[in-house]
Amino acid sequence: MKECIFQAVKDQRPLIHCITNAVTINDVANVLLSCGGRPIMADDPREVEEITSICGGLVINIGTLQERSIASMHLAGKKAAHLGHPIVLDPVGIGASLLRRKTVNDLVQALPITVIRGNASEIQTLGTGVNAGSGVDASGDYSLDDCIQLSKDVAQATGAIVVITGAIDVVSDGQTTYTLQYGHPFMQYVTGTGCMLSAVIGAYVTANRDNPLLATAMAVAHMGLSGEIAYERLQPGEGNGTYRQYILDAVHTLTYYKMSSDGGRIERV
Amino acid sequence: MKECIFQAVKDQRPLIHCITNAVTINDVANVLLSCGGRPIMADDPREVEEITSICGGLVINIGTLQERSIASMHLAGKKAAHLGHPIVLDPVGIGASLLRRKTVNDLVQALPITVIRGNASEIQTLGTGVNAGSGVDASGDYSLDDCIQLSKDVAQATGAIVVITGAIDVVSDGQTTYTLQYGHPFMQYVTGTGCMLSAVIGAYVTANRDNPLLATAMAVAHMGLSGEIAYERLQPGEGNGTYRQYILDAVHTLTYYKMSSDGGRIERV
Amino acid sequence: MKECIFQAVKDQRPLIHCITNAVTINDVANVLLSCGGRPIMADDPREVEEITSICGGLVINIGTLQERSIASMHLAGKKAAHLGHPIVLDPVGIGASLLRRKTVNDLVQALPITVIRGNASEIQTLGTGVNAGSGVDASGDYSLDDCIQLSKDVAQATGAIVVITGAIDVVSDGQTTYTLQYGHPFMQYVTGTGCMLSAVIGAYVTANRDNPLLATAMAVAHMGLSGEIAYERLQPGEGNGTYRQYILDAVHTLTYYKMSSDGGRIERV
Repeated sequence: MKECIFQAVKDQRPLIHCITNAVTINDVANVLLSCGGRPIMADDPREVEEITSICGGLVINIGTLQERSIASMHLAGKKAAHLGHPIVLDPVGIGASLLRRKTVNDLVQALPITVIRGNASEIQTLGTGVNAGSGVDASGDYSLDDCIQLSKDVAQATGAIVVITGAIDVVSDGQTTYTLQYGHPFMQYVTGTGCMLSAVIGAYVTANRDNPLLATAMAVAHMGLSGEIAYERLQPGEGNGTYRQYILDAVHTLTYYKMSSDGGRIERV
Repeated sequence: MKECIFQAVKDQRPLIHCITNAVTINDVANVLLSCGGRPIMADDPREVEEITSICGGLVINIGTLQERSIASMHLAGKKAAHLGHPIVLDPVGIGASLLRRKTVNDLVQALPITVIRGNASEIQTLGTGVNAGSGVDASGDYSLDDCIQLSKDVAQATGAIVVITGAIDVVSDGQTTYTLQYGHPFMQYVTGTGCMLSAVIGAYVTANRDNPLLATAMAVAHMGLSGEIAYERLQPGEGNGTYRQYILDAVHTLTYYKMSSDGGRIERV
Repeated sequence: MKECIFQAVKDQRPLIHCITNAVTINDVANVLLSCGGRPIMADDPREVEEITSICGGLVINIGTLQERSIASMHLAGKKAAHLGHPIVLDPVGIGASLLRRKTVNDLVQALPITVIRGNASEIQTLGTGVNAGSGVDASGDYSLDDCIQLSKDVAQATGAIVVITGAIDVVSDGQTTYTLQYGHPFMQYVTGTGCMLSAVIGAYVTANRDNPLLATAMAVAHMGLSGEIAYERLQPGEGNGTYRQYILDAVHTLTYYKMSSDGGRIERV
């Protein structure tokens, strides 16, 4: 089953429409190519419905909001919903402004989101509407139990699969919940590893429409394991410049054999 | 002759005004520096005429269209035309939306484009006005003969030199046509290698105003050979992250000696 | 003293709000992480005041101006001024258009800028209001004495610390002036090393509010020395693609021990 999920991305090469932030747009496009998908970026309201129509899935990332992209998120989202395409939402830095909270709230109300991915404070802010952190990478003090409960609550409230990334990642659809022990703390020194993960999730759930929960967990494992493999390659004198490229390399070259032989790190709780 | 064309880019360091997409804007700037040119990016209508005036050439790329950039493409294009600057047009993903087809059609009508570069489906869509592909990297099923004919037809219809990139690249001004056997299929795993090529063409034709056809062919060879050299450098565990950087390295370090000693791959048909 | 300044960035991890250009936005975010800071990019007028409020410093870069970002520069700048946050201004390519000159002039009039960083022609254009160069990397013919005088004059006229980067860098607050012999000419082949430096300055002055002049000089040394270390790592076949990543690596891994043992290159004049 898991092998089929991994392989489906490579075989189908799902085309993913990304309405994403300006900071990491290039890394998001490249990581989609790394994992097996194909990217198309477009955020003009006059074309986003057409663009989404030729794609298989939609990834919305609010990292650098602006009027044009917000309108496009709604237009593309409605079209994607109509076509039954999976929609991934990344509420980057939702705690940082009212504009971000309102935008995310409007999107969650208007669209049948498939997966929401954020850190604990972002997911709590999304769930409560009240700022629970002070920036884009604030994760506050959340225990694993807190994260499990939070993921379930927000999944039940929104109908989406919720991914909370942190030292241990949590994936829940409100009924079934997984914890995943992958990743490396050094990933925080590369901007956009969260954005990249959201895009990889988009490719996985688009290529595995009948099993979005396990597909999401596999995407989290794929990205996290890649962060570890990339870290192991680092030599003295190498820092976040080289690490960023090694992460893309690892996402690209990771085999299912490697993933499965390094197993036991996805647990159902 | 060819050596002069190669060397002219290094010697003149042509300043190229790029109105380009947000996904690959950094790679486009860096590849211009790699090949010997210098980039300046600007897309606000209030300044693009001045910006183009201090440059030697203009590269227009429609990868992430929006109202501001479309207006700027026309303003900068008219100024460039008035000044006799070469204009390169990259109709990225023209098949993906009506907005892209209309924008490209308007630009081709309004401006004396020097070079148009795309894959076969993009060039066919541009030539016919009817979508011939389903996305940014769709090349459909085109034989080499199809591509040669298509390049001639579109060159004659538009007055531009037409470059069709694919397994074998084709360059035609409607009278003289070259095929070029360079490049590596792995280039498809790095976003923006097409955008980069269009920028390199911009540098070449700007530094070689009296011979745009051969300059365009040389630019295609420079980029394609760089893709091969970069591929040869790849080690186990390296994927598209490292490959992207190796491509820039190869564009930067390629010598005319290497290009000429690896010859016989540009043929006049 | 210098060691404390270096260490303060690592310890405080200052959150820096960047309103910056689209070309180098990813590198600017990553270099902030490299040197010890944390980035947040936002340029929508509806959120920039809130964003700046949760940050410690603001970096304004005019590389790709547009209506939205200009409005945001003023809103964020006023809020930052009100909160006493350091403000760094990078007048990229100010000579290239009237829009850039007017925007910079308005910002300098309206805001208590802490540091202005540019090359000699950019700083002269800013100081005189008359274009002193023909593009983003034009530095004209300025002797070291010219640069020292220019930095003093513009510092006294604006009240800001002025950094003029070139073969020898100059840092002045109008009273005290330093020259710094760091950096490598190969840095010109990577787009955005100036933008990166401005961001690093933002992190340094934010973490060292009581000593902005020396903090600015240390940031210039940190970036320049990183350019040298990165250059030393280059192997045959490596060009600006690899160099860009090595620069980030060097900024990330540079130790105070390395900086101080390689000393005597900051001189008070």
